[in-house]
Order: sequence, then structure tokens, then C-alpha cells
Amino acid sequence: MTVIAGVDVGGTKTSAVLLGEDRALAAVTSVPTDASGPGGVYESTTHAIEELAAAGSVLRLDALGIGIAGLVDNRRGTVNHAVNLGINDVPLEIGSLLADRFGTVTNVENDVNASALGAYVQMSASEEIDDLAYLSIGTGIAAGVVLNGRLHRGRRGVAGEIGHLPVAAGGPECACGLRGCLEAVASGRAIERAWPVAAGRNSATELFAASRRDEAAARVAGEIADHLAGAILLLAVTYDAERVVLGGGVAEARTPLREAVDDGLRRLERRSAFVRALELPARLRLCADEPIGAIGAAVAAAGRLPQGTAPRPRAEQ
Amino acid sequence: MTVIAGVDVGGTKTSAVLLGEDRALAAVTSVPTDASGPGGVYESTTHAIEELAAAGSVLRLDALGIGIAGLVDNRRGTVNHAVNLGINDVPLEIGSLLADRFGTVTNVENDVNASALGAYVQMSASEEIDDLAYLSIGTGIAAGVVLNGRLHRGRRGVAGEIGHLPVAAGGPECACGLRGCLEAVASGRAIERAWPVAAGRNSATELFAASRRDEAAARVAGEIADHLAGAILLLAVTYDAERVVLGGGVAEARTPLREAVDDGLRRLERRSAFVRALELPARLRLCADEPIGAIGAAVAAAGRLPQGTAPRPRAEQ
Repeated sequence: MTVIAGVDVGGTKTSAVLLGEDRALAAVTSVPTDASGPGGVYESTTHAIEELAAAGSVLRLDALGIGIAGLVDNRRGTVNHAVNLGINDVPLEIGSLLADRFGTVTNVENDVNASALGAYVQMSASEEIDDLAYLSIGTGIAAGVVLNGRLHRGRRGVAGEIGHLPVAAGGPECACGLRGCLEAVASGRAIERAWPVAAGRNSATELFAASRRDEAAARVAGEIADHLAGAILLLAVTYDAERVVLGGGVAEARTPLREAVDDGLRRLERRSAFVRALELPARLRLCADEPIGAIGAAVAAAGRLPQGTAPRPRAEQ
Repeated sequence: MTVIAGVDVGGTKTSAVLLGEDRALAAVTSVPTDASGPGGVYESTTHAIEELAAAGSVLRLDALGIGIAGLVDNRRGTVNHAVNLGINDVPLEIGSLLADRFGTVTNVENDVNASALGAYVQMSASEEIDDLAYLSIGTGIAAGVVLNGRLHRGRRGVAGEIGHLPVAAGGPECACGLRGCLEAVASGRAIERAWPVAAGRNSATELFAASRRDEAAARVAGEIADHLAGAILLLAVTYDAERVVLGGGVAEARTPLREAVDDGLRRLERRSAFVRALELPARLRLCADEPIGAIGAAVAAAGRLPQGTAPRPRAEQ
């Protein structure tokens, strides 16, 4: 049996999954991320994989995939500029380090790309789809795209970095240096600024829930939803994938978020026959609450195995 | 020898090319387009192909490709909503009509997609590239994209329709119903409104030439160049193709346009390290002055031939 592990290294939590035959989830675990820098990230990742192997009674991994925030060089298996993990300037060769440690093939993927692939695998279970655009609305905003069953990374690994497109003239300054970027007006961090809540609570969840009864919240949520609707339109007229999937921390607001975004799409539709023809509300999905980042990382790693040894090779990279 | 014809049906002119071995141009012709409606378009297209066959002393075509503005259904070989050609509401089955008339395999492509493929073929002659985003700046604005040597049409054939993305809050109304769309502020038609010239002259050519010495022209050209720089950034962070190629009627302004757009890119770069890292000026090209739409249409049609019979199948569809 082919055994593949996938790890999603987040800013606070490192999730790991074990996939067996037919990509069935054989084991799931998570450990706190040690975000103190390269050494800490390596240690907590290793720890998660060991826990996972123990939980799944696995002695040997056939492939190991990592999804991690930051600038990932998929060919070299390195990550750099992962600010939330304390990785700066010096690339962490996490692919080869883990390959040596666990004696297996590894693949390193940008976290949003890994989640896009995971969302694709998840949705493929219930419907026949060839492509999908995944919009990650977390601390930052970025998209990951699967076209014809394959991850589209782009020539320089920046495909989907739509968070740094200016969408609000004269808007707040973005970390990238420009003003009014999508990320500066509609990300989790932007929502925290616009709707401060008690420490440890999710601003987005509280804002979108409150927007159903509170006028001030409805106004703030409406503006954010308009920007997210614009991002969905952007994904539709560029990649033109049949599905646009919302994920990331802000998507934890679930139904109230979905309703607000649908309202935003309908505001565009009322003004434009062109937008109506795109049928965006019918193509939109929220991401189900599985560890899709880790699943996608595992599936991407499966693509590194010699053909024929991995289950369902079509979606593999 | 495999003989493939390609036709680019424009609003005023129908260009046609004949490709022989190695895609060498064997013959080129053009006739005025009869834009009076479906019958007229069919007649002038047929006329162009007959002239072409006569010029190339060709008795039989192996494949015939059409590039045409409007909503193209590539699978069915139909075009609809081609406003400038008088085709409305009823789809013109141009693929099957021409297949019957010339006894050959046909392929119908959106004109911008055909040009993107033509630009890809043209650029592949001088450098090793796998993908390219072609930005057509004509009466309207749209992009065509080649990824891994293949045209990316999208699930609903709207991939690249970035002209209808709002980029200027409170900007002029667009034909699509929204306000401040890219097409409403930076297309050939927008330039005509902003910089009226004598009938029969190209507003873009005159505006960008004048912008080198006239302050008012420089201001207007600078605003348009900023929007085009934004479109180039958009293409880079979505498709992340190594090359972005400018074409269409506005690109006839050549060097002065290129300089203005480079200035626009540099204004973005001065504000953002993220944009600087994308090296956009180095990746930007102007499209050479060949009938790339007809060439791309021919190459797309070659992809309909059984494998092995067409030259250089890599870029074919």
C-alpha cells in the first residue's frame, strides 16, 4: 500500500494527515507550530509527522508533502520570507531536510496552492470538476488555482497573488507598498482593524454574524463583501474555472459570510448583464471544514512518485 | 505536405494566411469584411479563403481556422454577439458552414485567443517560452493566455475577459453596465474619447506621440498608461506567464506607448518591492506587426488534425 503524509504548517498550528489507498484519510493530527524561526519550524513539523506515523502505525512513508506560507521554490523544495514563521532572507531547505530525516520523497508547496489542491480533491469526491479557483481569505489574501486537474503555480510561483492588486483608490496602505490592495481592504487583518473584537475571537465570524442585526456591522460587512465579490469576478474572468471556493480563517464565518458575498455578487449582477451571464453565485462554494491544506500537500507529494504507484494520478503534480 | 489556412475576421478587414511545412507563411491576403451580418461575414470569409488558395496555388486545405470577435463556442464552431459584425442573438455556425464549403476540418476561436496563440508562435521562433499572456488593446480590452503551450479558454470561454473589471471607482460607464471598467478607461474607444483626432486617424498613435512634447497629452497618456500597467500587474499575479505581450490597434502606437507603459510600471515599482520583484518591464513585449490573429487561427486549427500530421504539435490545441 502507498502511504503518503501531508503537513500544513500554519502560523499557530501544524496539521498533518496520512492518506492511504484511494486517498482515504488514514490518520489526522495537529501540533502547535514553533514559529520561532527555521529550527523551530523544522522541529514542530518533524514532531507532527512522528505523531502521525505513530497514530497510523506506519513505519515508512512513500511520499511526504509540505504546505507552508511564504515564498516557496517548488523545484528546490525551499521556503523563504515566511514572516509569520520567523523565516526571513535565508531560505529553509525543508524539502531536503525532511527527505533525509524520513527517507522519503518530499514536495514543498505554497500553503494556498496546497489548500487549492485539497479543495479540488474534496470537491471531486462529490462532483465532476476539472478546475477550481480557491480564494484564501486569511491574514492575507491569495488564490490557488487548479486547471485541468493540475495546480497552476505560474512561471515565478506568484500565480494567484491577487491580494496585492489595488482595488480601492486611496485605500489603506498595504504591506506590499501599494495602496488599497485587496488584502488591505478585505483580509482577516483588514476585518480585525474594521471590527475589533476581544482577544482570541474571530473578527470575521463576529462581524458577519452581527451584520444580520446591526446596521454598523452590516455596512462594514457589505463593503468587505463587495471587495470579495470583486475578487470572485476577477477570478472568473481570468482563470474562468467552473468553481470558486472560499477558504481561510475568514471563511469560518460560514453562512453569514456566504450570504453577504452573495449580496455583493447580486449588486454587481443588477448593474451588469455581463456579470449575470457568469452565474457567479451558482459557481461559488465555501470550503468544507477538513484539513484541506494538509490533504492537498499530500496529494501534491503523490505526484512525485513514479507513475502508476499513486492512487488517482490525474490530480497530481 | 500539410496545408493549413487561418482567417482573422476583423470589423473592417479579413486577413488570411496559408501555412506550409514548419508553419512557414506560404501566402497572405486580406479583403474588406462585409460586416452587414451573418451572410456578409460568411461571404467575405469565403472570398478571403478563395483568394488565399489561389495565391498559394492550393487545391485542398487540410485544416482551416477562424479567429473572430464575439462569443465563440469552440466546441460547436459557432459565434454569437459579434456586435461589430452585425451578428446578434442568432449564433452563426461558421465552423460547419466553412467545413462543408471547403471540405476540410475547421476550428473557430475567439479573435483575442487566436492572436494570443499567434503571438506565442511568433515569439517561440526567437526564444524558448512555455506561456504568454497577450493583452489586446483595441476597441475593447481582453487578454488571451497560452499556458504550457496551450490556449487557456476557460470553462465558459471567458478566460481573459479582464476588460470588464472595474479599476477606476466612479469612472465612466462601460457597455457591460458596470462603471470604471478597464475597457472604459484604457481601450482604443476610451482613448478616442479622451483624445479626439481627425477621422481615419489612430487616436492612440497620435496621443502617445504627442505625449512626448505636449503636457495635456502627457497627462492623458499617463493616466491610460497607469491603467495598462495595472492590467499587466493583474496578468502577472494571476496567470504568472513569463511574457506579457501588448497587441491590438492601440499597440500600433509602438515605442511611445511602450515608453508610457514602462513609466507606469516604474511608478508602481517605486512604491512596491513586491512589484519590483516581478520584473515586469523586462517581461513586457510589443507584438510584432504580422497577421498574428490569422496565424494563431491556423495553428489552433492544426490542433484538430490527427496527431503526427501537423508540424510542431506542441503549441496546438
